[in-house]
Amino acid sequence: MRIAIVGAGALGLYYGAMLQRGGNEVRFLLRRDYDAIRAGGLKVFSTGGNFHLKEVAGFRRPEEIGEVDLVVVGLKAFANDRCAELIAPLVDAETLILTLQNGLGNEEGLAALFGPARVLGGVAFLCSNRGAPGEVHHLGAGKILLGALIPENGERAKMVAALFRSAGIDCTAVADLQKARWEKLVWNIPFNGICAVTGRTVADILGSDCGRRLARELMAEVMAAANAQGLSEPVPEEFADQMITFSAGLGPYRPSMMIDREEGQPLELDAIFAVPLERGAARGVPMPRVETLLGLLSLAVQGANEGTA
Amino acid sequence: MRIAIVGAGALGLYYGAMLQRGGNEVRFLLRRDYDAIRAGGLKVFSTGGNFHLKEVAGFRRPEEIGEVDLVVVGLKAFANDRCAELIAPLVDAETLILTLQNGLGNEEGLAALFGPARVLGGVAFLCSNRGAPGEVHHLGAGKILLGALIPENGERAKMVAALFRSAGIDCTAVADLQKARWEKLVWNIPFNGICAVTGRTVADILGSDCGRRLARELMAEVMAAANAQGLSEPVPEEFADQMITFSAGLGPYRPSMMIDREEGQPLELDAIFAVPLERGAARGVPMPRVETLLGLLSLAVQGANEGTA
Repeated sequence: MRIAIVGAGALGLYYGAMLQRGGNEVRFLLRRDYDAIRAGGLKVFSTGGNFHLKEVAGFRRPEEIGEVDLVVVGLKAFANDRCAELIAPLVDAETLILTLQNGLGNEEGLAALFGPARVLGGVAFLCSNRGAPGEVHHLGAGKILLGALIPENGERAKMVAALFRSAGIDCTAVADLQKARWEKLVWNIPFNGICAVTGRTVADILGSDCGRRLARELMAEVMAAANAQGLSEPVPEEFADQMITFSAGLGPYRPSMMIDREEGQPLELDAIFAVPLERGAARGVPMPRVETLLGLLSLAVQGANEGTA
Repeated sequence: MRIAIVGAGALGLYYGAMLQRGGNEVRFLLRRDYDAIRAGGLKVFSTGGNFHLKEVAGFRRPEEIGEVDLVVVGLKAFANDRCAELIAPLVDAETLILTLQNGLGNEEGLAALFGPARVLGGVAFLCSNRGAPGEVHHLGAGKILLGALIPENGERAKMVAALFRSAGIDCTAVADLQKARWEKLVWNIPFNGICAVTGRTVADILGSDCGRRLARELMAEVMAAANAQGLSEPVPEEFADQMITFSAGLGPYRPSMMIDREEGQPLELDAIFAVPLERGAARGVPMPRVETLLGLLSLAVQGANEGTA
């Protein structure tokens, strides 16, 4: 299968490498890693075993990639205004587009550009960081919950999920993509937010009473908003416990938003915070703690986030 | 009048200098500024006019100061566990103790040590920073609302307020000290908290929509908690507007908690956040935004605040 990776950060490089190792013809749209990957391929340092792809098809412009069967979108959500120019050259009548981005609103944006029928979404529970150019570090986890934007496309979602599994990626097709998205936010909102504001790791948060309490209170607000969205079934109360347990296993993990802030990069505040807040407000669910966290994040990165998205 | 200044930071140095210039016999308990003040006196750089006190009575230990008529306490609230040893040598049967510290609980702590009858409290709206040793910078404002812990002491509060006024300090005696304390918190909680977490100045906060909104939402929670405490009269809704207007006049002011964080000092989290939250909770007032801000502050300064108070 011909697959294009658009947005080859830590997530795009890792899944792209796995898909290529699994026998697919993968083409990466690259920026920072272009020279290193053209020269020496892509090295994956993974808790599941290191590997080195010596021949990697890397390109600078989407026109060089041409049409593919599947586009995997791993862009930071604040770069979504570039989706049209980056993805249009890759798409023929049958091409599927799978966004593995964080937060809410990404599938809808792609549907507006390319029609809803071809849009799939995946919620990735992946711990990975970029390394030196040409390298990616997979620190743990990696499961994807994959679904279609419109229910009629369930079979296509199952097919792509099977393709990912055949490449060694833990991937499950889900009927209710929105539910999976909101469940991811139950993690993303507290941990990306708290770590980015405070400069503390996941282990620091969970190692303090006030950190655990704050994380749980934020989770409760997100779950209340989720369960007001008419999901196929509610996010159960014990999901918060599961997320705490999952997070405890991450140790001193530095979530992507924390790294982005440290590097002076823009943060994915709209997709991870503002859109969920809007959807909560639309159903009358108060989320004062999440609002406060977003306000503080916005102030903290003033300047860094201006004029980018 | 013999006056001792205990806790000679920016606030203690400024008011102590004003009181000495006004003709009182002021004795400063010093630590950082001891050598500089003994050698060269105390320089005040003030928006109200600079002045230099060449002869200043500075001491290292309270026993050297001896008994006085009035003790002015300007310690950071997290150092309140030192009040007994620092103040006891200064107190005779008639000595009054005036705390100008931030937050809630300071008068009660002094009352437990020295009896409630002698305890006064003042709420200082002062913008000042320490400069080099032997210098203090008064950036603006400076009004004090001064009251007694117990109502029977109203006349003593009026007398001390008159003393301050005679030294050129804008000082008004108030019947309801608790109300004045809570009104100060309407400023302290949002601006100390937001600026300390985000590293942004007061002008940055007020210059952004989300900053102004967050400050107002925090103010609303503090005012709701204040107005559940049985104050003599409620903090009126327009008080928030007044505080925003006051703050806009401060420009790029860096609140003390922001400076403390930057310098790796402990923060006054109990007096300014935790005690007000407890008192709000005791009256059934939810303060989720203030709780969130305190949680983030606590995490951000983990380590710095441990083992100090």
